[in-house]
Amino acid sequence: MRTVIVGAGLIGRAWAISFARAGHTVRMWDTDVSAAGAALGFISEVLPELAEHDLLSGQEPKAVLDRIRIVGDLEPALADADHIQENTPERVEVKREVYARLDASASPGAIIASSTSALLPSQFTREIPGRHRCLVCHPINPPYLIPAVEICPSPWTSPEVVTRAADFMRSCGQAPLVMKQELDGFIMNRLQGALLEEAFRLVADGVASPEDVDVGLRDGLALRWSFMGPFETIDLNAPAGVRDYAERYQGIYERIHPSTQRRVDWVGPVMDVIEADRNSRLPRQDLAERQRWRDLRLMELVAHKKLSEVLANENLTEVSADKNLTEVLADKTHVEAGK
Amino acid sequence: MRTVIVGAGLIGRAWAISFARAGHTVRMWDTDVSAAGAALGFISEVLPELAEHDLLSGQEPKAVLDRIRIVGDLEPALADADHIQENTPERVEVKREVYARLDASASPGAIIASSTSALLPSQFTREIPGRHRCLVCHPINPPYLIPAVEICPSPWTSPEVVTRAADFMRSCGQAPLVMKQELDGFIMNRLQGALLEEAFRLVADGVASPEDVDVGLRDGLALRWSFMGPFETIDLNAPAGVRDYAERYQGIYERIHPSTQRRVDWVGPVMDVIEADRNSRLPRQDLAERQRWRDLRLMELVAHKKLSEVLANENLTEVSADKNLTEVLADKTHVEAGK
Repeated sequence: MRTVIVGAGLIGRAWAISFARAGHTVRMWDTDVSAAGAALGFISEVLPELAEHDLLSGQEPKAVLDRIRIVGDLEPALADADHIQENTPERVEVKREVYARLDASASPGAIIASSTSALLPSQFTREIPGRHRCLVCHPINPPYLIPAVEICPSPWTSPEVVTRAADFMRSCGQAPLVMKQELDGFIMNRLQGALLEEAFRLVADGVASPEDVDVGLRDGLALRWSFMGPFETIDLNAPAGVRDYAERYQGIYERIHPSTQRRVDWVGPVMDVIEADRNSRLPRQDLAERQRWRDLRLMELVAHKKLSEVLANENLTEVSADKNLTEVLADKTHVEAGK
Repeated sequence: MRTVIVGAGLIGRAWAISFARAGHTVRMWDTDVSAAGAALGFISEVLPELAEHDLLSGQEPKAVLDRIRIVGDLEPALADADHIQENTPERVEVKREVYARLDASASPGAIIASSTSALLPSQFTREIPGRHRCLVCHPINPPYLIPAVEICPSPWTSPEVVTRAADFMRSCGQAPLVMKQELDGFIMNRLQGALLEEAFRLVADGVASPEDVDVGLRDGLALRWSFMGPFETIDLNAPAGVRDYAERYQGIYERIHPSTQRRVDWVGPVMDVIEADRNSRLPRQDLAERQRWRDLRLMELVAHKKLSEVLANENLTEVSADKNLTEVLADKTHVEAGK
């Protein structure tokens, strides 16, 4: 497919990698040509790292890079496009103007998707003649490592466009969450927000430190969530599955609920505590280096996940044959238990 | 150290592995001797799997197993213990009775820790003479794979006991979250609950399917959380760190908040939707097999995490030397951008 990236910042450059890796051609445009150049520089650094982690489907970095071109002229690229991904600033007046321009020149069959995380598609596509082909495809950055993408239709987005956008995303190795209707925060920011609100409350109330919260996720809750998600997790956490879990444990959560009905101001006094804690672990001048560390850890994790499903399935058969120790044990159990 | 496991069910048997792996001796007791025997059988099956994933610190499974003994008589074991881990049913009257018994016979220096997830320590230790040495050490099961443990003191738990309990847990390779005061749901169930309440609302409102929620975590949010936690994640998600993030994005979450001020009954109509979805992906008769798959995936993930920190740091130095493609690119950028 022929794709156009509109806006070559953090999100645009990351989409370019995802699209080009899947074999699609990418035309990248930005009002600021030097930004597009910088994006291409970034991409050329990331591709060899992806290859090293076997995350280019066996392709050479150069083969992927060759599918990406910066264009100085937007309109000819639009006329020739199947999928247009817009990544302009998160201001409704900017998006309205950009969408009018994109819709005016895009080929009739093209889908126009926005990467917005903060705006609903109805807010900037209402007046557009081709509004039925406009929707949101919101990634978690960077999409070439994080598969989840929220597909959020406006009330007037055609169902066929939703299906095609989701299929295109799947062709890029993304995992689309197809929303049934538009809703502020989409799905992931609502889930993240719910957890963050509780995290800020716990710190503000002096119950936990920011690091306690991070440990609770990175050495606790998020381990299973990272390969199963929360519903499968609770489905496996009670003998008879998810209903059994809800029946057993809803009481705990019901009891907690009243104490969660307030917001803490994130930039109020609690932020002094959080910032001091974070600063003690990561001096502010090291933020950029740590972002690079994060991206490498993420790459390792994604490569691991690709292998792990296979391994877990293999072990499932192998290990059940390896019960020698159980037999060795039998005596011991009887002797001690008989005391 | 000499440890006693009181109650050899799902949690007790898992603690036995964690304690014994760290070199501590384990006396395992249960009112039902056959349950203790079954626990030992389970342990003998898990240890070789842990060894296979290099999660026994290079020890032979048998060496770890040899540190675990079932005892028919509780009192002599208590008299000789440093750390007692109680895993009896989640009923306050049961715990009160058990605690009276444990405190009466435990050696003066022993810590008595409960694995409870549902009760506060003050609810069952108030009347105990040695209540200053009682507290909660709540794991996510299984603790031999999931490091996070919540240390929850009652109002009368001595600070020195909290410190010793946390140190003991660290000696077992656990990652303690040390709560400053007791609070219903502790830390992790409050965080999990906040996210689950939103997940149930999204499904009940027809915005997302249960699978959309799971994809949003396992292919999205939980990837970074699984090695950084949510505070470090947002600290790295804005150019100037966590305060910058809060200033930029609090507005989105503030806007969402009013629509999250209600609970959906988890076992109401929404459960029919969730159960049907889960059942279509995992027939109820396959739950046990999938639990086994989960444990293997978890083992792979934990083994991966052990290696990954090292790898990411190595790559951080290596890759920055590998910028050949950036130079190759320079021409191309200029030609295309000039259009």
